[in-house]
Amino acid sequence: MLMVTPTLKINGERMLAHFEELSTIGATPLGGVARVALSREDLRARLWLAERIDNYGFEARDDAVGNIGGILRSPNPHAKTLLIGSHLDTNPNGGKYDGSIGVLAGLECMLTLREAGVELPFHLEVIDFTDEEGSWQSLFGSMGLTGRLLDEHLNDSKQDNAAFRVALLRLGLYADEVYEARRDPNSLLGYLELHIEQGDLLDRTGTDIGIVTRIIGRSSFVVTFHGEAVHAATNGSRKRDALQGATAFMTGVYALPNVICGGMVNCGNVDVLPGATTIVPATVTVHMEVRHPDPEQLAAMEQQVHHLAARCAAEYKLAVDVKRSLHREVAYMDAYLMQTVAQVCESQGLSYVHMHSNAGHDAQIMASFTPSALIFIPCKDGISMNPKEYTDWRNVENGANVLLHTILRLAGV
Amino acid sequence: MLMVTPTLKINGERMLAHFEELSTIGATPLGGVARVALSREDLRARLWLAERIDNYGFEARDDAVGNIGGILRSPNPHAKTLLIGSHLDTNPNGGKYDGSIGVLAGLECMLTLREAGVELPFHLEVIDFTDEEGSWQSLFGSMGLTGRLLDEHLNDSKQDNAAFRVALLRLGLYADEVYEARRDPNSLLGYLELHIEQGDLLDRTGTDIGIVTRIIGRSSFVVTFHGEAVHAATNGSRKRDALQGATAFMTGVYALPNVICGGMVNCGNVDVLPGATTIVPATVTVHMEVRHPDPEQLAAMEQQVHHLAARCAAEYKLAVDVKRSLHREVAYMDAYLMQTVAQVCESQGLSYVHMHSNAGHDAQIMASFTPSALIFIPCKDGISMNPKEYTDWRNVENGANVLLHTILRLAGV
Repeated sequence: MLMVTPTLKINGERMLAHFEELSTIGATPLGGVARVALSREDLRARLWLAERIDNYGFEARDDAVGNIGGILRSPNPHAKTLLIGSHLDTNPNGGKYDGSIGVLAGLECMLTLREAGVELPFHLEVIDFTDEEGSWQSLFGSMGLTGRLLDEHLNDSKQDNAAFRVALLRLGLYADEVYEARRDPNSLLGYLELHIEQGDLLDRTGTDIGIVTRIIGRSSFVVTFHGEAVHAATNGSRKRDALQGATAFMTGVYALPNVICGGMVNCGNVDVLPGATTIVPATVTVHMEVRHPDPEQLAAMEQQVHHLAARCAAEYKLAVDVKRSLHREVAYMDAYLMQTVAQVCESQGLSYVHMHSNAGHDAQIMASFTPSALIFIPCKDGISMNPKEYTDWRNVENGANVLLHTILRLAGV
Repeated sequence: MLMVTPTLKINGERMLAHFEELSTIGATPLGGVARVALSREDLRARLWLAERIDNYGFEARDDAVGNIGGILRSPNPHAKTLLIGSHLDTNPNGGKYDGSIGVLAGLECMLTLREAGVELPFHLEVIDFTDEEGSWQSLFGSMGLTGRLLDEHLNDSKQDNAAFRVALLRLGLYADEVYEARRDPNSLLGYLELHIEQGDLLDRTGTDIGIVTRIIGRSSFVVTFHGEAVHAATNGSRKRDALQGATAFMTGVYALPNVICGGMVNCGNVDVLPGATTIVPATVTVHMEVRHPDPEQLAAMEQQVHHLAARCAAEYKLAVDVKRSLHREVAYMDAYLMQTVAQVCESQGLSYVHMHSNAGHDAQIMASFTPSALIFIPCKDGISMNPKEYTDWRNVENGANVLLHTILRLAGV
């Protein structure tokens, strides 16, 4: 067997050229990108990737949920497939690195390995997952691939998904066929994902690589307080002010990380009706989420959300409705892959730390389906989902090289 | 001089028929009305009033801000005019009584006085003020009549008023002519307004009539906190969460009535950007107001709003921008008119109380221009600006009779 030198490196300049080309698609004035899933910009980015795959002579693959793959075949036709990827879609006002570098690193590893004449005992497939960010349905592509999509994700039983179905149709995808995207787990060897940290641990401590042990669990809630719309000058004791209840509720949930030993809380939106300065709010909906790396503590946070909502409603004479709109269990990364990545870091002279991921990623869906690893590189000041999102290109190269040598170790070459 | 019997009463059944007819215009499924100023429904209500004025043979009058008047002429052509009225416009989901009964009572007094053959030493004019509720410009009609409209109320220097100008055009009104609506204060004797209390003092204490001594001062603010949109899973110490700052701010302002010796606070709307559950809010705008019957205490509340905004911004590493979007000074009602109304209540055997108004009314604008009185009747449970707004018809009749006899006393008949 050909032993590849441990000094083999990806071509950082080529990858940077790819990155710069991709970053022009959906570029925003402040230096970020807007490639909302299934938008024109996302479609252009997908086309760009598909053309690269085709032009470089890899085998293109797509599926019933719009995931785009490019395959470097093993000489063994019966080999399993190692997936490497992430997503090209972004938030409406996102950054250039989130998702994209995972896909570009996968493509770059394939190019480097082919140029080095490496014959792999598994097929290597770069994959761009559809709508990781959840503009329509969070982690849609990886959920499709793992067969976790439910009727309610596409039909209108839980919410109006008509626009989502239309957006899928623009890609030639049919809501009643998305189940066909499920792959046979026995055909897969594993999944590797490179991503910026979206936190500041690595940046703050000057660490090169984060090896993710688990991905934090997350539950989103839609909490609606119902009071009564009366004139703002109504006597205080007669008011049933939904916003006063919601404010007390938010104050309570912001304190939960102190009460629950860690975890994270975000209140992302507030809808107030009727919404006039001179009218006491009748209905206030808070869209919020809790995260915790420990499943039991996450459950405790959920319980507290219900408890706080009920207590604040009672205090302000309101009715309250708490709906859990999303639940992602804590996802554990594969121990053998983590160990392999650590060995690679050591051999590459890169500092590393084991950590959990506070953000969700396709790896968390994939982990329940096939052994998965998630590799972080630093993210400047922890700022992400923002045009200011930045990491030194050296960090990206480091991450791609860790991917490359992880593949080589798994291949035993 | 003909002495009218103190037992003269308005025709409650006729007034009820008017009320029921008017209530069908813009009627909402839950029993309220929606007659947003200058909407189709408001135009229909105006037409209805103009037709009543015309059909009953009163002299119709309109002006450059769309106020609709109907005049019962004094035999003395040089007489001054006593205005009685309120407004027919409502909030988007308003009640049937707010505004409308003041106009209908004015019309009913004119009909009753004419039928009784009373000759008044002043012209009596019922008036429907345009956009009291401020769907476009709060108290627009009374501000126009008193010459208090400024350029900024109609042009786009402070906000985009293009839609407002278009709405005015539908009535044949021109933004650059509204100044012509100003009347000569020397031509006016005073202004009387009958209104539901929109609080529960009268209802709770079983009092027939509230004689308003002053109308509470009010200042509205638009308070915008600027943080940074980052991933919700960002480390807490790195977050600059505009909604956490806004929540602390609202918590603080809700406590102001305890700190400032009374007064009222309402936060009526909250805008959150970008508004996704998984993104830390970057910009949060709170639309709020403070009210106080004492001018110095109102100023202290305003100071506290600025102070709290700055403190909460500093605590959460935010920038903040506090804009006072509206300021209504405390308005004092005319002492002689208050005394006359009290005498009428006594002679009519109606219980009454002196009180201040926590809500704004056209009377507060008129008070700085001509002697004004504001007469309250009970409002069930203090609920107003709501389809549930209700008062016993007996209360409306009582109020209209107080108006009637106040007019008679002022006339000296």
